[in-house]
Parts: sequence; structure tokens; C-alpha cells
Amino acid sequence: MSWVVLFTLQRSNFMLKIYFAGSIRGGREQIDIYQKMITHLKTFGQVLTEHVGEANLTDKGEKGLDDSSIYQRDIDWLKSSDMVVAEVSSPSLGVGFEIAKAIEFHKQVFCFYRKKPDQKLSAMIAGCPDVEVFEYDDFEDFIYQINSIIKDSITNLK
Amino acid sequence: MSWVVLFTLQRSNFMLKIYFAGSIRGGREQIDIYQKMITHLKTFGQVLTEHVGEANLTDKGEKGLDDSSIYQRDIDWLKSSDMVVAEVSSPSLGVGFEIAKAIEFHKQVFCFYRKKPDQKLSAMIAGCPDVEVFEYDDFEDFIYQINSIIKDSITNLK
Repeated sequence: MSWVVLFTLQRSNFMLKIYFAGSIRGGREQIDIYQKMITHLKTFGQVLTEHVGEANLTDKGEKGLDDSSIYQRDIDWLKSSDMVVAEVSSPSLGVGFEIAKAIEFHKQVFCFYRKKPDQKLSAMIAGCPDVEVFEYDDFEDFIYQINSIIKDSITNLK
Repeated sequence: MSWVVLFTLQRSNFMLKIYFAGSIRGGREQIDIYQKMITHLKTFGQVLTEHVGEANLTDKGEKGLDDSSIYQRDIDWLKSSDMVVAEVSSPSLGVGFEIAKAIEFHKQVFCFYRKKPDQKLSAMIAGCPDVEVFEYDDFEDFIYQINSIIKDSITNLK
């Protein structure tokens, strides 16, 4: 891939709207990598669900919003997004639900899975023809893969 | 509710096709209750996903079927089902995905959640207007609630 093209896109006026999906109430074990991923994704535009990476957001969920309001806000964000990036290394009802909804809304869905020896990704994600699953080793590996994906997506969207 | 009506329905020729959703690769902590729920649901007809309650099905998933085949079989079962009963006490990408797909296929979705003091159900399920969430204390409580639900559903479907 051309890093010059990517650098130019990062600094152009084109702002991607990215829906980042990560576990909240399912468990916050992956919070460190969510934070890093969101910070990197923000170099390409707006991450609608930036709060997913906030350290003070616990597995008790958001304060000040009831479940119906959270649901409707997230569905509206999903509909308005240009793409969905989902971290799928942790089991999560919400992330699974969001991935299926994103497919229904005809969004591009990119799932990132950090392989563990004692764990297998759900067949409903790994076997789904409507999403792309990328295994990654660490944050550097994620950066390498997502940069390539976003370069291609921006080219298609422009 | 009339238990005579329910007893009559259980022994009539009307066979419900029920899609039971429970965590597999997300974790098998709830296997005992899955087994009991499925055994009870079978008194009303066919549980398409009976394997979810099998003790020898571990979190490594099914043997002998690749992920694409599992996905397509489960989507076909979802489409052909009369209703979906989902146990949502454990985080699970697959269960979250199946619930959203079931809504897309215009199925009735009944989610059963065993409340724990240190856990909250995902807002994408708890706040979704297209599913019904029932909290339950134990298996006896599940039986009481599901019998009432199925009696009403059979009456509507007949």
C-alpha cells in the first residue's frame, strides 16, 4: 500500500464516520486495546462510539442514559456510519447484535479478532459471509491491517 | 392462565418450532439451565437447536461442521422457526447476532435473563423495542413464565 496516499487521506477534508463496537457490559478486559484502536481510527475521521474506549466506562454501562435511549442512539449512529470496526475477542451480546444490525443496514463490517489458544470465535461471526474477519497479533498488527482496509474503503467511498 | 389449556396444547398435534439461543463459544457456564430449558421447550414441539444443551458440546464448538456450514444451518433454522427463546445471562457474540437476525426475520423473540448483582444486561437487548426480556430467578420461575408466553403464542399462531 502507498503510505503517501494514506497520509494524504488522513489530512484531507474527507471525514469517515466509524462505528467502533467493543464489549461494555460483557466485560472490559480489552479496554486498553479499544482505547488505542479508537485513537488511531480518529486520525481518519469521527469515531461515533468514542466512549467505548473510555477507562471510566465500566461493565455497569453508561450513567445518565436509560437502556432505550442508548439503544436508539447506537442504532442511529450505526445507520449514519460509513463503516463498522468491531473488536470481537471478547464475548458480547451487544457487539454480536450490532454486527447483525450493521449488515441489515448494508454497512461494511470489519471484525478484528486476537486469537487465543483456548478460545474460538463464534461461528455466527467467523462463518458469516457478510463480514470480514481479520486476526491480529497486537496493536501494531491492527494498525497495519486497518490502514490498508481504510485506504481501500476511502477510495471506494470517494 | 389455564393449565388445562396448556396441557391440551402440549398434547395436541400443534408442533411449535423453537429456536433456542444460548452461548457456545462464549462460554458454557449456563449449560445446566440450557439443558433443562430445552427439555421443557420440547414438550411444546421441536427445538431446532437442541445441541446447544448437550453437555459434550464445549466452548470449542461443534465438530465436523465448518463455520460457514454452521452459520448457514443456523440462519435457515432461524428463518423456519415460530419463535426464538434466548438465554441472555452470559455474554455471547452468537446469541446477540441471532437475536438481531431473528428481529430482521420478524420472529417473536423472548429473552430470559437471570439477574446477577454484579452484572447488567446489554443495552442493545434490554433497550431494544423488538424483543421481550424476562428476568427469572430459577428454573421453576422460567417454567412459569415460558408456559404463559407459549400459551399466548400458540393461541396467536393457530
